[in-house]
Amino acid sequence: AKSLTSPKGSDSDLIRCTVFDKDGNMVQHGKEIRRSDFMKNYNLASRDFRKISRHQHGIGSNSSANINVDIVPSIVIRSNGILLNLLNIRALIKYDMVAIFDSSRNSSSSGGGLNESHSHSLFLKDMTERLKGTGNDGESLPYEIRALEAILIHVMSNLTTEMKVHTTVLQNILNGLEESIERSKLRYLLIQSKKITQFNQKASLIRDLIDDILQQDDELNALHLTDIHNGTPRTGSNHAEVELLLESYYKTSDEIVQTVENLISQIKTTEEIILIILDSNRNELMLLGLKFSTGLLSMGIALYCAAVYGMNLENFIEEIDGGFELVVIVSSISLLLLLMFSVKQLRKVQRVTMTGLVREERIANGHPHQKF
Amino acid sequence: AKSLTSPKGSDSDLIRCTVFDKDGNMVQHGKEIRRSDFMKNYNLASRDFRKISRHQHGIGSNSSANINVDIVPSIVIRSNGILLNLLNIRALIKYDMVAIFDSSRNSSSSGGGLNESHSHSLFLKDMTERLKGTGNDGESLPYEIRALEAILIHVMSNLTTEMKVHTTVLQNILNGLEESIERSKLRYLLIQSKKITQFNQKASLIRDLIDDILQQDDELNALHLTDIHNGTPRTGSNHAEVELLLESYYKTSDEIVQTVENLISQIKTTEEIILIILDSNRNELMLLGLKFSTGLLSMGIALYCAAVYGMNLENFIEEIDGGFELVVIVSSISLLLLLMFSVKQLRKVQRVTMTGLVREERIANGHPHQKF
Amino acid sequence: AKSLTSPKGSDSDLIRCTVFDKDGNMVQHGKEIRRSDFMKNYNLASRDFRKISRHQHGIGSNSSANINVDIVPSIVIRSNGILLNLLNIRALIKYDMVAIFDSSRNSSSSGGGLNESHSHSLFLKDMTERLKGTGNDGESLPYEIRALEAILIHVMSNLTTEMKVHTTVLQNILNGLEESIERSKLRYLLIQSKKITQFNQKASLIRDLIDDILQQDDELNALHLTDIHNGTPRTGSNHAEVELLLESYYKTSDEIVQTVENLISQIKTTEEIILIILDSNRNELMLLGLKFSTGLLSMGIALYCAAVYGMNLENFIEEIDGGFELVVIVSSISLLLLLMFSVKQLRKVQRVTMTGLVREERIANGHPHQKF
Amino acid sequence: AKSLTSPKGSDSDLIRCTVFDKDGNMVQHGKEIRRSDFMKNYNLASRDFRKISRHQHGIGSNSSANINVDIVPSIVIRSNGILLNLLNIRALIKYDMVAIFDSSRNSSSSGGGLNESHSHSLFLKDMTERLKGTGNDGESLPYEIRALEAILIHVMSNLTTEMKVHTTVLQNILNGLEESIERSKLRYLLIQSKKITQFNQKASLIRDLIDDILQQDDELNALHLTDIHNGTPRTGSNHAEVELLLESYYKTSDEIVQTVENLISQIKTTEEIILIILDSNRNELMLLGLKFSTGLLSMGIALYCAAVYGMNLENFIEEIDGGFELVVIVSSISLLLLLMFSVKQLRKVQRVTMTGLVREERIANGHPHQKF
Amino acid sequence: AKSLTSPKGSDSDLIRCTVFDKDGNMVQHGKEIRRSDFMKNYNLASRDFRKISRHQHGIGSNSSANINVDIVPSIVIRSNGILLNLLNIRALIKYDMVAIFDSSRNSSSSGGGLNESHSHSLFLKDMTERLKGTGNDGESLPYEIRALEAILIHVMSNLTTEMKVHTTVLQNILNGLEESIERSKLRYLLIQSKKITQFNQKASLIRDLIDDILQQDDELNALHLTDIHNGTPRTGSNHAEVELLLESYYKTSDEIVQTVENLISQIKTTEEIILIILDSNRNELMLLGLKFSTGLLSMGIALYCAAVYGMNLENFIEEIDGGFELVVIVSSISLLLLLMFSVKQLRKVQRVTMTGLVREERIANGHPHQKF
Repeated sequence: AKSLTSPKGSDSDLIRCTVFDKDGNMVQHGKEIRRSDFMKNYNLASRDFRKISRHQHGIGSNSSANINVDIVPSIVIRSNGILLNLLNIRALIKYDMVAIFDSSRNSSSSGGGLNESHSHSLFLKDMTERLKGTGNDGESLPYEIRALEAILIHVMSNLTTEMKVHTTVLQNILNGLEESIERSKLRYLLIQSKKITQFNQKASLIRDLIDDILQQDDELNALHLTDIHNGTPRTGSNHAEVELLLESYYKTSDEIVQTVENLISQIKTTEEIILIILDSNRNELMLLGLKFSTGLLSMGIALYCAAVYGMNLENFIEEIDGGFELVVIVSSISLLLLLMFSVKQLRKVQRVTMTGLVREERIANGHPHQKF
Repeated sequence: AKSLTSPKGSDSDLIRCTVFDKDGNMVQHGKEIRRSDFMKNYNLASRDFRKISRHQHGIGSNSSANINVDIVPSIVIRSNGILLNLLNIRALIKYDMVAIFDSSRNSSSSGGGLNESHSHSLFLKDMTERLKGTGNDGESLPYEIRALEAILIHVMSNLTTEMKVHTTVLQNILNGLEESIERSKLRYLLIQSKKITQFNQKASLIRDLIDDILQQDDELNALHLTDIHNGTPRTGSNHAEVELLLESYYKTSDEIVQTVENLISQIKTTEEIILIILDSNRNELMLLGLKFSTGLLSMGIALYCAAVYGMNLENFIEEIDGGFELVVIVSSISLLLLLMFSVKQLRKVQRVTMTGLVREERIANGHPHQKF
Repeated sequence: AKSLTSPKGSDSDLIRCTVFDKDGNMVQHGKEIRRSDFMKNYNLASRDFRKISRHQHGIGSNSSANINVDIVPSIVIRSNGILLNLLNIRALIKYDMVAIFDSSRNSSSSGGGLNESHSHSLFLKDMTERLKGTGNDGESLPYEIRALEAILIHVMSNLTTEMKVHTTVLQNILNGLEESIERSKLRYLLIQSKKITQFNQKASLIRDLIDDILQQDDELNALHLTDIHNGTPRTGSNHAEVELLLESYYKTSDEIVQTVENLISQIKTTEEIILIILDSNRNELMLLGLKFSTGLLSMGIALYCAAVYGMNLENFIEEIDGGFELVVIVSSISLLLLLMFSVKQLRKVQRVTMTGLVREERIANGHPHQKF
Repeated sequence: AKSLTSPKGSDSDLIRCTVFDKDGNMVQHGKEIRRSDFMKNYNLASRDFRKISRHQHGIGSNSSANINVDIVPSIVIRSNGILLNLLNIRALIKYDMVAIFDSSRNSSSSGGGLNESHSHSLFLKDMTERLKGTGNDGESLPYEIRALEAILIHVMSNLTTEMKVHTTVLQNILNGLEESIERSKLRYLLIQSKKITQFNQKASLIRDLIDDILQQDDELNALHLTDIHNGTPRTGSNHAEVELLLESYYKTSDEIVQTVENLISQIKTTEEIILIILDSNRNELMLLGLKFSTGLLSMGIALYCAAVYGMNLENFIEEIDGGFELVVIVSSISLLLLLMFSVKQLRKVQRVTMTGLVREERIANGHPHQKF
Repeated sequence: AKSLTSPKGSDSDLIRCTVFDKDGNMVQHGKEIRRSDFMKNYNLASRDFRKISRHQHGIGSNSSANINVDIVPSIVIRSNGILLNLLNIRALIKYDMVAIFDSSRNSSSSGGGLNESHSHSLFLKDMTERLKGTGNDGESLPYEIRALEAILIHVMSNLTTEMKVHTTVLQNILNGLEESIERSKLRYLLIQSKKITQFNQKASLIRDLIDDILQQDDELNALHLTDIHNGTPRTGSNHAEVELLLESYYKTSDEIVQTVENLISQIKTTEEIILIILDSNRNELMLLGLKFSTGLLSMGIALYCAAVYGMNLENFIEEIDGGFELVVIVSSISLLLLLMFSVKQLRKVQRVTMTGLVREERIANGHPHQKF
């Protein structure tokens, strides 16, 4: 089948992979091999393989740089091998061989490149140990299950680390927002909200993927490649160890998803209350603005009084003694009267109760609060 | 399997636990024991045990103090024991022994330490009574079921208490908000909203966990450790007592979840209406502000009239009798005209109807309401 | 099992109940009986009975008055009886006896006490008729099914009545809000929204409860207490009458839930549009405010002109003929110029289109941008 | 069973129905018949019949006029007949007879009465044709299936028509809102939003009803009344024609529901963006208002300068040449300085970026912070 | 069965289709054929065919131009053929023939006509190759499965392309909004939000359709038309190739849906934060407005002082030396006093914290921040 998205000729692409043999020795490290050769060597259907190798094509394309093209994880279980695509791990597990495809170049954008490669080399080391069976667990699991566990541990560990980073960062932002609501914090919240949503999707999909496999007896049985190779495939529900193992990682991923959902709901709650607080603050600001308007309006009437007597016209009190004082007093009184009237108007809308009644009653009962 | 999150060497950690023997006697109280010894003594798989003991490692870490790392409850049923992790109770139940792991140090942040330990000692006392079979119930349930019930009763009692606290607190806040919308109350609402959401998640997960066990006949059968030990495991749906027992606690937890969801939806409703009320109040404030602007604008024209005749220029009415009165009257009339014009403009946007039509019709019919 | 929430000694509480015998005669009416005696007489497990009788303890507690402690309805089907807790009805049905527990004192807060008791006595009367078999239906259902139907009819009738009240009240509020958006109406909407949400939860839980029983053949069979007593329990799907009967009440409750959900979505829609309308109105208010500002600003320049010539300084036009007219005209012109400029600025933001383009194009045709 | 909602005596109500015989002839048209007689004639259980005939009682009640009391559609399949209640069609189908209950009086409020009756007579005509088997389809379906199809076609046709009306109306409103956001359009949107939500509920319930029947083999078999009458009931999955037929109408109704949901999500999106645009517009309005305030404030200082020299006090520059020009120039300069200062303040909050940084950086480059 | 929506006589409509024979040769290209003839030739039930051909009727109708009448995709599997309606592809697959219905005239509105036809001709070419079996895959799938795969590849390729366009466009808008919030961008976001929602619905429905088929063994078996024609229909779960094939396309479509949902949640997050930022910005604007009001108010008192001494009245300080300076100083002092008082008022509401307490405490402790 022609590849959906890649142009012709990409079939001759080289893929870099690290291969472990039956005894857990790393027989190849980061060696490049022809895609078609690899498929032929390990007897893979191109359709299955596409999902694993597709993302190495994407390097050249520039427009998709910002686009997360590979969200859905997958574990494809075939009779001759298990193809995994979990987070940044793409691997092929057979009954006597494990191949880890090198994706460090791709994933450089999503995490720090250095950290990434350190974590990756730790993973390769752990894989060797596990395949050699030098782990401290007494249980002697089949080769393929040990390889699967090494990958799952790496994936869960990555998810847990990322979850912790998100949790710490977001808790800091949320705490910061409780202190003061500033635009830079809001912008940071936006960026982190997007990231946590993406992370939630990623973790949920991995959890659901493990759950799907747990639900199907035949898939669990099909995981036992060694038994299948030996001609004694598992049947029925004779797959207790692998079920317990997957269940354990299912619970870990569920724990992560629940923590993240909790965090997301905290963000939502904070956002809602911030909106209400900003609204409430705005009303306070408006009230103050109205108080200033009130002052300005009252001053206007006093100014008018003064201006009237500033006219070059006969005003009949020019000769009267105390005319000046009279006007100043009259203007001050009219200022006060208008001010009192305005403040009364203001008080009607000042206190934001839900019950219009209570408020007005209180005012009616002899103005108990005169704050202005 | 190497532990996912803890560094090496933590396997030698000490765990503190309280152990009850076959007859319900507390043979150990808060004694510390080596993790590895405990696992060997009671024949536990490290993978299962990790979930129970993990949280005792977390004490030293500081960054995770604010982070809820243990949200998902679990009941792991194995052939040789039941491992529970419900709220702050972590326990191992075998057919002839119960071990309660001491987590009082961890949980000190989530509740009052003193209360916690009082509640915990009550729990230990109740466990003793139940295991001794001195309860007033005639039903003679197997040892392990009685232990399970003691734990479930403690958990449900804790959930119920916490639910009541949340309900009381939130009802107070909501009632307070109905009286007046203030920032401190909103902030308190935010804090409590986050808490109730977390509590809801916690309670829901416990409910779902019990429901999951109820759905699976084999899990219910596997709970009968004594029968399994005696070589007569339950089969089919021969587990009526334990089913009824779990069903009863399922209903209690469902009741709690439903109450909390009801509360959460009340918070949502209140928030929505608060937003509308704040919006509505803001419009009232703006209307009043416009009324003041109206006054100021009108006063401006009067001021202008007065200022014009205050110019040191010949104004032709200097000599006329009643020139002063004329200007005062003219300026007052222009003030009134402008005021009336502005008020008319204002009235067009004043009444917030959804029907633009109705409003304008009413105004058209001879200004029936003139409130300003 | 010790009761979860009630203190010791409450076991000796008295319960009030009304008992019907095999022939539908009311052999006890509101007589008080010891809780423990009742349980012994009718052979009830304390765990099952707790759910029914719990709410009679709650009378004394004050803090839980506002808290809805009993949301989840239940129908517990045991081999020797059916225990129901639906809305305000708590009942025990046996193959030859029906006991209705008196909860009129509790429910006094939720509805009008008088109405409640009237409705309750009607219910008791209907129960008698139904148990005597004097109903007009030819179908001779077993005793226990007739009792069940009497209760379901009462419950559905109560739900329908409450639904109608909610619907009428909320339609009035929503219609009122369409006429004018006022705070008192919003507050009323808040109260009613909370109530309808609670009612929706209540009705949904009852519907789901009936549906749950309908889904399980064994539960439906277990309802036939008479047959079980006669030693001929129903098996398989031989329960057509009771299935049709429950299906009918399922449909009624579904109808209620659908109506209520419809109503709730109408509230949501109205709230959303109210927010938009308040926003839109606010923008109109601001526009008007800007118009007033425009006027004030323009008047300011005229005032300045006048004030300049009001200074006690030589202004060179004192002696010129028509100096007064000149200044008045010049100040009026500058007033008009500034007004026109401001109004132009205003018009740029006035029309709230989503298409910035259309607006700007229109202005562009003749009046290019004049940024402030 | 006593009817839940109707008072006694309503059993003697008359019902109007149109009856078709075995050969598709309309043997009764709108004739009234006693409810009890009808039930006896056609051997109907009162419980089943209640659902169909209930709504003819409701005519007299006034309060329920605004309330949609009949939302949930139903298809009750009994051994001796099929009772349908879909939209405005209430019908009884037997193996040799079809009765359509006349509900034209009820439905007069929901649609235009005239249109309604025209559509209804078309439906009756189509029913006749279909029952006579004069349709152009070669498939000779059983009598009852042909009747069912006639009803489903009518129902789907009605749904499709209503959907098209809603779609056209709402697209117009949404397009109108894109041009300008006006209150009358918003009110219209509110009304239409409520309607489309109700329509969505109605269509979804019909779709789910058809889907429910499709899921149950026994229900599909029970539809074959003729076969049941002939003593050869269908068993297993031997019901291909009727399954295909129902599937076809399921798809049509699903298409309608999907279209409506798409429309609803478009409304939601539009509402959200309108809120943001109104908000954004409000900020623009405020900015302009601030510009005016800026002008006013600056003018105030110039006015003050002029007013100071307007005082009847010795001001020392009275005698100086060019005193007038000096004051005019000084006041203009102070006006400009204050204006520049205010505009600078304004510019700080003018551009609504999410990144406080970018904004402040730009100002920093040459114009460092000058806080007010 | 009469068509639901089309008038009579439309049965004689011509349909344009491209037909491939058994060997993959294009025997007809865009030839028009009578609808009824086609149905007779290929033995199709009119009910099935309606879904495919309906949309060619719609050309003439004008009102439905804006309305998306064909949202739900369908794959109808009959014993003698598969009828597909996926995106813009409508096809009939038989064991020895494939007919692609030409819909290029219809789809001209949804995409660029030219691009569309180019993509369509590529599709026809790929179909030929696949049917001829010249693909590079060694697997020799049956004729009908190869045809199905060709269509699925085309559909997935179209979905992927459209997804990429949406993703790129929306990422640009979202990035643009992060820089500055402008109306034109918001409008563009509205348009694109509607489109992505529609696309999400479209892609989800296709994914669900494939999933539905994957869930049903009989549907998967029924896809093998060649085997059915040869009289050896597949039974049980003997359909591994086609299952893997569909699973592969299911995963591709799931990937698309997940990516789109991720994008939609990013839009939602951005919208929410934009609302908060606009709100926050508005509060800043109001604060600045209040600062200006403060200035204006203070200037008012100075003006009043000057105006009072501008009155043509005896003011007692006319003769005093330094009277002018005195008034200027007194007015300046009163200006400053009022300004300080106002600024104090302002500071109370200035900093938007969630904790009213913290703010006031800080101010109380010696005014640590004096920004104004």
